[in-house]
Amino acid sequence: MTEAQSAKDGALTAGPASDPYPVPEFRSEAVTDLRRTGIDPNFWYPVAVSRTVRKNKAFAAVFAGERIVLYRGASGTVYALEDRCAHRQVPLSMGVVEGEALRCCYHAWAYRGNGHISQIPYLPKGVARPPRGVRAYPVREAYGLVFVFPGDPGKAATTPMPELPEFHSARHRTMTFSRTVNCHYSFMHENLLDMNHQFLHRGVLGRIQPKLLGSESGPRFVEARYLFTHTGGKKDPGAGLLAAEGIGGSSSPDVVTVRTDYPYQTLQVVPEKADLPAFSLWVAYVPEDTEQRTNHVYGLLMIEKPPVPGALRLAWPFIRRFTERVFAEDRMAVEAEQRAWDEQGEDWNQEVFPLILDVRDVLRTNGVPIRPESALCGAAALCGTKTPAGTA
Amino acid sequence: MTEAQSAKDGALTAGPASDPYPVPEFRSEAVTDLRRTGIDPNFWYPVAVSRTVRKNKAFAAVFAGERIVLYRGASGTVYALEDRCAHRQVPLSMGVVEGEALRCCYHAWAYRGNGHISQIPYLPKGVARPPRGVRAYPVREAYGLVFVFPGDPGKAATTPMPELPEFHSARHRTMTFSRTVNCHYSFMHENLLDMNHQFLHRGVLGRIQPKLLGSESGPRFVEARYLFTHTGGKKDPGAGLLAAEGIGGSSSPDVVTVRTDYPYQTLQVVPEKADLPAFSLWVAYVPEDTEQRTNHVYGLLMIEKPPVPGALRLAWPFIRRFTERVFAEDRMAVEAEQRAWDEQGEDWNQEVFPLILDVRDVLRTNGVPIRPESALCGAAALCGTKTPAGTA
Amino acid sequence: MTEAQSAKDGALTAGPASDPYPVPEFRSEAVTDLRRTGIDPNFWYPVAVSRTVRKNKAFAAVFAGERIVLYRGASGTVYALEDRCAHRQVPLSMGVVEGEALRCCYHAWAYRGNGHISQIPYLPKGVARPPRGVRAYPVREAYGLVFVFPGDPGKAATTPMPELPEFHSARHRTMTFSRTVNCHYSFMHENLLDMNHQFLHRGVLGRIQPKLLGSESGPRFVEARYLFTHTGGKKDPGAGLLAAEGIGGSSSPDVVTVRTDYPYQTLQVVPEKADLPAFSLWVAYVPEDTEQRTNHVYGLLMIEKPPVPGALRLAWPFIRRFTERVFAEDRMAVEAEQRAWDEQGEDWNQEVFPLILDVRDVLRTNGVPIRPESALCGAAALCGTKTPAGTA
Repeated sequence: MTEAQSAKDGALTAGPASDPYPVPEFRSEAVTDLRRTGIDPNFWYPVAVSRTVRKNKAFAAVFAGERIVLYRGASGTVYALEDRCAHRQVPLSMGVVEGEALRCCYHAWAYRGNGHISQIPYLPKGVARPPRGVRAYPVREAYGLVFVFPGDPGKAATTPMPELPEFHSARHRTMTFSRTVNCHYSFMHENLLDMNHQFLHRGVLGRIQPKLLGSESGPRFVEARYLFTHTGGKKDPGAGLLAAEGIGGSSSPDVVTVRTDYPYQTLQVVPEKADLPAFSLWVAYVPEDTEQRTNHVYGLLMIEKPPVPGALRLAWPFIRRFTERVFAEDRMAVEAEQRAWDEQGEDWNQEVFPLILDVRDVLRTNGVPIRPESALCGAAALCGTKTPAGTA
Repeated sequence: MTEAQSAKDGALTAGPASDPYPVPEFRSEAVTDLRRTGIDPNFWYPVAVSRTVRKNKAFAAVFAGERIVLYRGASGTVYALEDRCAHRQVPLSMGVVEGEALRCCYHAWAYRGNGHISQIPYLPKGVARPPRGVRAYPVREAYGLVFVFPGDPGKAATTPMPELPEFHSARHRTMTFSRTVNCHYSFMHENLLDMNHQFLHRGVLGRIQPKLLGSESGPRFVEARYLFTHTGGKKDPGAGLLAAEGIGGSSSPDVVTVRTDYPYQTLQVVPEKADLPAFSLWVAYVPEDTEQRTNHVYGLLMIEKPPVPGALRLAWPFIRRFTERVFAEDRMAVEAEQRAWDEQGEDWNQEVFPLILDVRDVLRTNGVPIRPESALCGAAALCGTKTPAGTA
Repeated sequence: MTEAQSAKDGALTAGPASDPYPVPEFRSEAVTDLRRTGIDPNFWYPVAVSRTVRKNKAFAAVFAGERIVLYRGASGTVYALEDRCAHRQVPLSMGVVEGEALRCCYHAWAYRGNGHISQIPYLPKGVARPPRGVRAYPVREAYGLVFVFPGDPGKAATTPMPELPEFHSARHRTMTFSRTVNCHYSFMHENLLDMNHQFLHRGVLGRIQPKLLGSESGPRFVEARYLFTHTGGKKDPGAGLLAAEGIGGSSSPDVVTVRTDYPYQTLQVVPEKADLPAFSLWVAYVPEDTEQRTNHVYGLLMIEKPPVPGALRLAWPFIRRFTERVFAEDRMAVEAEQRAWDEQGEDWNQEVFPLILDVRDVLRTNGVPIRPESALCGAAALCGTKTPAGTA
């Protein structure tokens, strides 16, 4: 088969005429199913856009099935607690902010920003040991996003936040994306790293010929450098405007670098001798549900302003429309992949592109098992088979 | 911890500074999960408002997953049968009433009010033993509701119906409620008995300070007496009108008595030396689904007419609007509790109010196991794992 | 019980007065549940109406949970492949037809009509054994429908297609039906064969008295002959027009023959000495989902033109409306049966009509087990308990 294959255009010869209806065999990797791999919680993950967490309001966020209430106190500080009252489990995000505290809407129990209960208004004297409170999450605001640290709180202080110098550069402007996509986060990494999927965007970008210039992998990263050649077809005006800036278009001699740096991903165009990228996309894919079959994409697209003052501002709505169109097509594809996985019950992917095999390994080896208790818990809600903890 | 706690306002001191992110521990009761406790079927339960069961019409009702067809024959009598034809299981509630009989819509099998088949129009002679019929339920009409007895029919005659003398009193007028709430019935009992939840109704009632005067418990009941003081804030006009009647308001010296008398619940205001309550709410929470995670609230609110003739009639729409607002807030809270239970898979409640611990015991010890076959059955429909009975 | 039963009108005597609330006992057949019986894939099944499979377009079809992409190449030939790309499992029905090939929308892999991959545009040299392709299905077009052979491809050539000479007769005109019904296909066979269900159609057909003239059964078929007498009530105009043609109406002396000839079903009126039926319905019930609780009805209703030229054309919309009304009522009944089965978790049917017992046997003995892996697969998607194949 390998000999028969045309190295030039990837064309394969026909199979033997005697076997008109082959049932395919699948190559399987003797490892954990990538789509059952949980993301490592010991990183800083965005769970909200800062401006949606308003002063004196509670906000319901989530990380991989863990419900988290964010609230901004009178001082402007954002706090992150488990989103449940210790009393009757009603979400604290239904509650009321009072100064730096959060009060449950139901029986008015009040919580401090560290999760401790500060008041139970009617607490009877006879209660020996009232509940102490709920879990609090380390929280930081940066780049217009609210980040929490869902893992071991002891590791939060020493775990670096993402570094995005171009966000603070006066020469750049940032477009923020916040969108739910119904698939495992791994499909997102594979999508962006495998630029051979430009056929998907033929209606928006025209015919694009990607050429892999090189790639590099390590235990926590995969990086690929591509050169794109536009070989025909109409382009979206937003793509044209970006191309005029030297990005992703026909006349561009620039190299696009896509990198998964666990757990984040970036896409950058760095002109020769430049200190900062002309075009820089930073993305985090944050699982929403316990089984991590849905992720929330938080994206920051930082674009260098062109020499003409105000030009980028004029181009902004076109660039947004263009990126929305591309994103919608990618979403269609990755959600179709997730639906196929849901039906097949396991990962049937047959990858032929080496750097995608690499990123699959990176995501698998840096990931964690999806919490089995939680999976049981979900099943219990459905099947009623779970034995409650504490039942002797 | 207990010493540190201010008995005056329930304020708790801060936890140790060295433990900023405590993971809470849960106290668990070594007993059946209250939310997995089935309601005892050996009581009379309302399953429809009488006027919705019209003459010559069939009506689809339900009790804890058991589908029940009610129909009112030509004589005006209401009958209650299993809602399935013995032949092909099509709901009899899709059928046609003929005199005192009910005919299935599909192959026209006819049933008597006792569930026996009265006619199979095309019955061939060769059939040795045609099916005999379906189950019939004891049924009674009272208080504008249709009650059935879903348990052992032999116990129906000796099981008393609820007694509501104020319903028949010429001095009272009754408002009827019929509403589905998506939670286990136990959340409803806890909600009404624990009057410390007035914070939930702050927008409707203003600031209310409940004071527990006393409570009493027995194997089948819990009763609590509260005094309410209005301490500020705007009130709904309906609340004001009720208060003018001496109920639930600022100037009222009256005591509110809330009582769970298994399986029903009441809330009453009995003025001194009165023979009947001035304000009396009777409620039954009837599970709808097999797993009893949904209940249908049938409520009768009986209010004494004030001395001014016609005043109550004028106030009626305001009182209805007020009660609807309060009910909507309670529903929001109890449905949030059920959703939390569904996700957590077990009861994490940490109760601090002794009489709520009592009512939890009453509901648990008077309840029955949720039918395991039915639970399996539901799972089978989903998972396809159940072996059909009768398969050798 | 049998003696007490009136043979004349099927009326049964009342049960003993001492037993007012009988709990019924169910007769069970010690065999596989009919509703868990898969349809035999070794037949030709329609999966699309021909004109909906347009040139240069892909079409998503399905057979019992197997997703199938149909596409019509530039030559007009229709091809049927597994509806998933071998690479990343994205449905090929989202792809693009190029000549006689189909290209996946995502990374542009191209497939021949036999399922073999013809091109992977960017295939790197280092890949030892690229995936070979996907399964192709034998496919035939006939009677305005696209048929596939979902079973063993080796049996396709020797398995006859349905024979419908009246479809090609110049004296007949054909009305095509294509509709999803949410029930197991067996309910459909029982519905059409048991003509005692005319009560269901009383609003459309008036009162119809069916008389079974005789029936015949074999290992693969059941055939019943009925005589209908109209005994009163208003009829739909379409029913009247059909009756004027000698079908299904009051004055008709014609005999209606209903036949299950596994896996298809027919209903015919053959006038005396005629070579072809005056009225002929051919139906296939094609399961859509893996558990086969949904079927797609493909029906061909072939009606002989009356002597008056153009009369049938004028009557056509009335006949269509009439058949739609009858079909809607049948659908209501069979979907109610499926819902009952879903809730009861097994087949509680108590059949009294011998030829229905026969067709149940035919459907059971000619059926196949529903693929257990697929059932597991569905459960796994829900419960997350399945171990992926290939995990050592």
